Amino acid sequence: MFARCVGPARNATAHISQRRLPNVGIGYLSKRWNTSSTSSEGTVAPKPPRVVFSGIQPTGIPHLGNFLGALLNWVRLQQTAAPEDELIFSIVGWHALTLPQDPVALSNARRDMLAVLLAIGLDPQRSTIFHQDENPHHAELAWLLNCITPMGKLRRMTTWKTRLAASRNANDDSEVDESLLNVGLFTYPVLQAADILAYRATHVPVGEDQKQHLELARDIADTFNRTFKSDSPVFPLPEVVATPTRRVRSLKDPSSKMSKSSPDFQSRILLTDTDDQIKSKIRGAVTDSIQGITYDPVDRPGAANLLDILAACTNEDVLEVAKRYADKGHGHLKNDVTEAVVELLKEPRGEFEKLKGETAYLAEIAQVGATKARERSEDVLQEVRKRVGLV
Amino acid sequence: MFARCVGPARNATAHISQRRLPNVGIGYLSKRWNTSSTSSEGTVAPKPPRVVFSGIQPTGIPHLGNFLGALLNWVRLQQTAAPEDELIFSIVGWHALTLPQDPVALSNARRDMLAVLLAIGLDPQRSTIFHQDENPHHAELAWLLNCITPMGKLRRMTTWKTRLAASRNANDDSEVDESLLNVGLFTYPVLQAADILAYRATHVPVGEDQKQHLELARDIADTFNRTFKSDSPVFPLPEVVATPTRRVRSLKDPSSKMSKSSPDFQSRILLTDTDDQIKSKIRGAVTDSIQGITYDPVDRPGAANLLDILAACTNEDVLEVAKRYADKGHGHLKNDVTEAVVELLKEPRGEFEKLKGETAYLAEIAQVGATKARERSEDVLQEVRKRVGLV
Repeated sequence: MFARCVGPARNATAHISQRRLPNVGIGYLSKRWNTSSTSSEGTVAPKPPRVVFSGIQPTGIPHLGNFLGALLNWVRLQQTAAPEDELIFSIVGWHALTLPQDPVALSNARRDMLAVLLAIGLDPQRSTIFHQDENPHHAELAWLLNCITPMGKLRRMTTWKTRLAASRNANDDSEVDESLLNVGLFTYPVLQAADILAYRATHVPVGEDQKQHLELARDIADTFNRTFKSDSPVFPLPEVVATPTRRVRSLKDPSSKMSKSSPDFQSRILLTDTDDQIKSKIRGAVTDSIQGITYDPVDRPGAANLLDILAACTNEDVLEVAKRYADKGHGHLKNDVTEAVVELLKEPRGEFEKLKGETAYLAEIAQVGATKARERSEDVLQEVRKRVGLV
Repeated sequence: MFARCVGPARNATAHISQRRLPNVGIGYLSKRWNTSSTSSEGTVAPKPPRVVFSGIQPTGIPHLGNFLGALLNWVRLQQTAAPEDELIFSIVGWHALTLPQDPVALSNARRDMLAVLLAIGLDPQRSTIFHQDENPHHAELAWLLNCITPMGKLRRMTTWKTRLAASRNANDDSEVDESLLNVGLFTYPVLQAADILAYRATHVPVGEDQKQHLELARDIADTFNRTFKSDSPVFPLPEVVATPTRRVRSLKDPSSKMSKSSPDFQSRILLTDTDDQIKSKIRGAVTDSIQGITYDPVDRPGAANLLDILAACTNEDVLEVAKRYADKGHGHLKNDVTEAVVELLKEPRGEFEKLKGETAYLAEIAQVGATKARERSEDVLQEVRKRVGLV
């Protein structure tokens, strides 16, 4: 890992050949995300620069749910951030290992995910894009944070309780025995806190299911600041970045989320699907036989899902979209959804197919990203080591 | 951390100024530790080189118990190892953090421990001597091993159970609640396994209380080898190095171990104690009023402790020593113990006092050691990353 360091850091991307970046999502959020605020005296107080961190697991080609729920928001953050804001996006391979993985598949997924991030329009010159597992500071900080995190706090994580329950197909937590679950599953929220805090991130876009983990990261940051007091706190308390919630559901069972692990390939649309595959999957989406279209996620989840997808693609309010289809049929809606999804994925898919083969370029991007990330977190870790007494 | 890298590794110690090394313990184990074995055909089959790893926490100046129980054995290993054997000794700061530490005291203890290791005769040109917290591979590997280690195995560790019980002054495990204990305390046996396996260590000198952890390290190594199979196993299964057990007891309460945490300073002899302090502490050691000396650890623990210390200093069998004092008094025994301890500690103490002020030299040794350690473990980590699919 050390041998792959290059420098200097801040200009490390300067030699990367310029690539045309796809325009995914442009125009959706034209307002700059990090605006200045006007004080009561009428003077403009510039907000301090924000440090945005987010991560995604390398577990295969993203589906439409990943794309609309997370990745597209990253692109929009990049488009709308103030110039002084820092954007850090990580492919978190170490988290993927908390569940059994086929090593060859994981290795491919890891490289593919980097190609995906570039394909959707993340710019390695604007954002730090890197593999978590190429920055050992995350693991080091996770260890240090382990030492100030009580067992009880991890035990209260919903993700842990869910996994506990799932491990035995039990009906509630009290029926299960955790002995067989691995320690990584139990402690990964601490690694997640380290991912964020290693960059003193201030803003973290996370999905609903990860909000509790961000709360834990804030809690751990606060504990560290209080335990190892000095003139100033080491860590800011990271905030959730409010992003439009796009909960895309399975095309075959709209009561559950679109998922990569469903055995039914027709239930999800992948970023790499051809136009024909997209068309066929949406045509086969489960709806209902009620006349006309209404947005009713409880009683008409199939139609609501299609409306949600369409609204996400066009960045409209879903109720506005629903109004337009009030007197139309499911076939009409499906045609329009197909068209919107095909349009949305066209450029990223083309870019991905091109990038996938450019292994030397991808390796270069990964190396530059890892170097930037390591150099960025080194300052933080130096301060942390000093505070705890390991200097 | 990266900025402190120097190279090349294998010759990294060449420029360290030669220092006279103290002759602690010389002559105790004159037989070479790693000998060849003669096969049934009479040909000599050389044993494969061994990789010895051991660690010590930086928690203050070592006392006689630490010295006779662990450190002196390291020096003897260095003196008796075959030339092709590799010796790796680590100051394990990350483990110290599992209990609350004063950062300033920890920082001093960390530097002092390095001075101690040199003062007792460990040679940075022969052995790799380094701070664990300066080799991030330990933390990285610990994370990866967390992902294959079931919760149940850590819960069975006696050290964990003891801490659980101690946390509430409870009489048995069932009375306590682990919620308030930190995750580092729970998972540190995995970090310990990583310490060992990061160097593919084959031999680990450990005390009785750590044998269960070495068993766990073997178990984890075996699980890794089986989970990520290939032509050859990644990790050897490390073996315990049998070293003479020297359980030095408190001079004031010989029913318990000599301990740095006892409030009674007279109960322990520190490596830095003056001759007069040693004399006064041994003179004040608790014994009994029975006439003559016998070795009876149960009924006469005070006298037995003094005999144990004397036997350890002279490297004799304790029963042989006891015979010599059968018709002598406690005063006589105490005089001889004092003389032996003063003689044993004289040179290390002098060396330590000299080295303590040589901060630039110590920093150089630490840097060279960390570089050697990192470069040594990088090969292992590369192989590990490949096996799990993070490449």
